[in-house]
Amino acid sequence: MVKPIIGITMGDAAGIGPEITTKAVTSGEIQRICKPIVIGDKRIMKEAMKIAKLQNIDINPVTKVDQAKFMRGIIDVYDLQNLKPSKVKVGKISAACGKAAVEYLKKAINLAMDQEIDAITTAPINKEAINKAGFKYQGHTEILAERTGAKNYAMMFISDILWIMLVTTHLAIKDISKNIDKKKVLNTIKLANDVVKKLRQKKPRIGVAGLNPHAGEAGLFGDEEEKIIAPAISEAKKLGINVKGPISPDAIFYLANIGMFDIVVSMYHDQGLIPLKLLSFNRSVNVTVGLPIIRTSVDHGTGFDIAGKGWANPTSLIEAIKVATHFVHSSK
Amino acid sequence: MVKPIIGITMGDAAGIGPEITTKAVTSGEIQRICKPIVIGDKRIMKEAMKIAKLQNIDINPVTKVDQAKFMRGIIDVYDLQNLKPSKVKVGKISAACGKAAVEYLKKAINLAMDQEIDAITTAPINKEAINKAGFKYQGHTEILAERTGAKNYAMMFISDILWIMLVTTHLAIKDISKNIDKKKVLNTIKLANDVVKKLRQKKPRIGVAGLNPHAGEAGLFGDEEEKIIAPAISEAKKLGINVKGPISPDAIFYLANIGMFDIVVSMYHDQGLIPLKLLSFNRSVNVTVGLPIIRTSVDHGTGFDIAGKGWANPTSLIEAIKVATHFVHSSK
Repeated sequence: MVKPIIGITMGDAAGIGPEITTKAVTSGEIQRICKPIVIGDKRIMKEAMKIAKLQNIDINPVTKVDQAKFMRGIIDVYDLQNLKPSKVKVGKISAACGKAAVEYLKKAINLAMDQEIDAITTAPINKEAINKAGFKYQGHTEILAERTGAKNYAMMFISDILWIMLVTTHLAIKDISKNIDKKKVLNTIKLANDVVKKLRQKKPRIGVAGLNPHAGEAGLFGDEEEKIIAPAISEAKKLGINVKGPISPDAIFYLANIGMFDIVVSMYHDQGLIPLKLLSFNRSVNVTVGLPIIRTSVDHGTGFDIAGKGWANPTSLIEAIKVATHFVHSSK
Repeated sequence: MVKPIIGITMGDAAGIGPEITTKAVTSGEIQRICKPIVIGDKRIMKEAMKIAKLQNIDINPVTKVDQAKFMRGIIDVYDLQNLKPSKVKVGKISAACGKAAVEYLKKAINLAMDQEIDAITTAPINKEAINKAGFKYQGHTEILAERTGAKNYAMMFISDILWIMLVTTHLAIKDISKNIDKKKVLNTIKLANDVVKKLRQKKPRIGVAGLNPHAGEAGLFGDEEEKIIAPAISEAKKLGINVKGPISPDAIFYLANIGMFDIVVSMYHDQGLIPLKLLSFNRSVNVTVGLPIIRTSVDHGTGFDIAGKGWANPTSLIEAIKVATHFVHSSK
C-alpha cells in the first residue's frame, strides 16, 4: 500500500501544538503508516524539539513537498519562515502566533487542493489569537469551508467508543435554537450516512438526538423536535437512510455506547462533546466532513497552561493522523 | 439502628411505576434496611403484582400509617382509592392517572411533613398527564416546593460514579440563559456544599461547569461565565467553600470521573444528565435538596412503551429507597 502524504499544521506556536507535532511525526506508529510533513516554521519546531527533549533528530526545511525526505530521524518542515521564536511568549495569546497559525492552515489547504499532500491534520489553534490577528473565524472549520468553497460540511468526532456529528458547532447556548433548521439537520444526517458508509463499508445506523430535555417531552419544553428535527428525520427515511429519533439526549449516548447506533447526530457542541470526552478524553479525533479535501484534527485546545513543559500528550494528534491516513485509503 | 419508614408513591398507574414499586418493596435489600409503605391505590397494586408475576404476597390496605404491618410477604398500601383499574389504559397518557399520581404525592408530602413517614421516594409520573389533569406543574419538584414552602431547593443526581446538582431543570434549551442568575448559581453551590458535607462527612470539593462550549472561551461564545457564573464562584469561595470553575462542560465530567470533584454543579438538565446516564443508566437516584423533608426519586420516566409487560427494572427505585434511608440516618 502506498503511504499517503499527511500535512500536519503545527498550530499556535505559544501552545502545545509544535511540541505534540514533533512527538507525533517522529513516532514509529506514524512513520510506519504515512509520510508526515509539518507545515509551520523551522525555528519554532527546533524549539519544540528541545521542549520535547528529542535528540538525534534533524529538521529538513523545504519550500516544496517534493523536497521532503520522509525518513526516520528527520522531520520535514514546510517552512513558512513567518514566526521568530523571540516573538513567541509560551502560554500567551498573541496576534503574531494567531496570524502565523492561520497561514500554516491556508498553505496546507492549498497543498491539499493541489493534491501535493493527501490530507491535512491540524494541531490546535487559539480562537482569541486568530481574532486578535484580525481574522473573524471561529476556528479551523470556517477557514477550511471558505478556502475550499464547501457549502455542506459538518464536524464529526470519532473515538474508539463513540462517533458523533454536530448540527451546530461553537455557539453560545442561547443561540443554538435559532441556528437549527430542517435543512441543516437533514444535511448532517446525509453527511453522517455518507461518511460512515465509506469508512465502515456497511449500512449506517444513525441516531438523532433531540435538542431539549427528554426530547421536548411532546412540546412541553421546546418544540424544535416537532417542528424541525422529526420532519428532517422523516425526509431522511424517505431517502432510504436507517435513522431513528429524535431521541432523548440523556439516553441516546448510552444507547450508542451499548452498540445501537454507528453515529449520533447531535444538535450542539456540548451535547456531543460531553459524552465523547467523558468516554475518550484525549483519544478522540475531529474530522471535517463534506470538504473536497481530507482534514482531521486533535480533540483538544492549545493547552497554554502546560505549554513549554514537555508534558504534552500527543495521543490525540497521533490518532488524528491515523484517521486521516485511513480516510485517504478509503477514498481511493 | 431503627429502620426508617419510607413512603413510596406508586406514580402514574399507566406506566411502570406500580410494577417497579411492587418489585422494589418486596425485595430483600429494601426489607432489610427500612419499612416501606406504598402510597397509591390497592386495586392498581393488585394488577401490578400480576404484571410482576409476584405470588404469595398479600396487600394490606391502610388509611393510617400505624396500621401498616411492615412484614415480609405483605405490601402495605396507604390506599387512596382514587383510581379504578378499568380507567387505566396501560401505556397511555390520561388525565385520570395524572390526577391520581398528584394525589399520591400530596398525601406523601403531608405524611412526611407530619413526620408519620421519614422520607418519600417517588416512582415516575408523566408531565403531560398531570398537565391534562389541570395541574401546571413541570414535575414532582415543583409540587414538593409548593407544598412544603421551600424557596431554595435544587435537583441532585447521585450515582456510584458521579454526583451532580442542577441550577435549572426542565427548560427548553433556548430558555436556559435567561433563567440563570448569580443568586441561583450561588445557592446551588451552597446546597451542594451542605448536602455533600452531611452525606459524606467531609469537606466537599465542588466543580462548577460553564454554560457555553469551552466555558465561553473568554466571551467568544456567550458571556454568562464572566457575568454570572464566575462572580457566584468568587462569592462561594469567600464563604470558605472549596469550589472551582467555571470549567469547560466537555472536560468537567471527565475530571469528576477521575476523582477531582465530589459533585459537579451543572447549569442545565442535559449538561448533567447526559454524562450521568451514560455512566450509570438506570442506577442513578434523583434527590430534591433544600426541602424540609427528604425526597428521592428514580432517574427514569414512566416507560409507557414497556408498561404492562413485566420487564420493568426496579434497580433505580431500589437505589432511590436506599439513598432515602441513608439520608434519614445522616439527618439524625
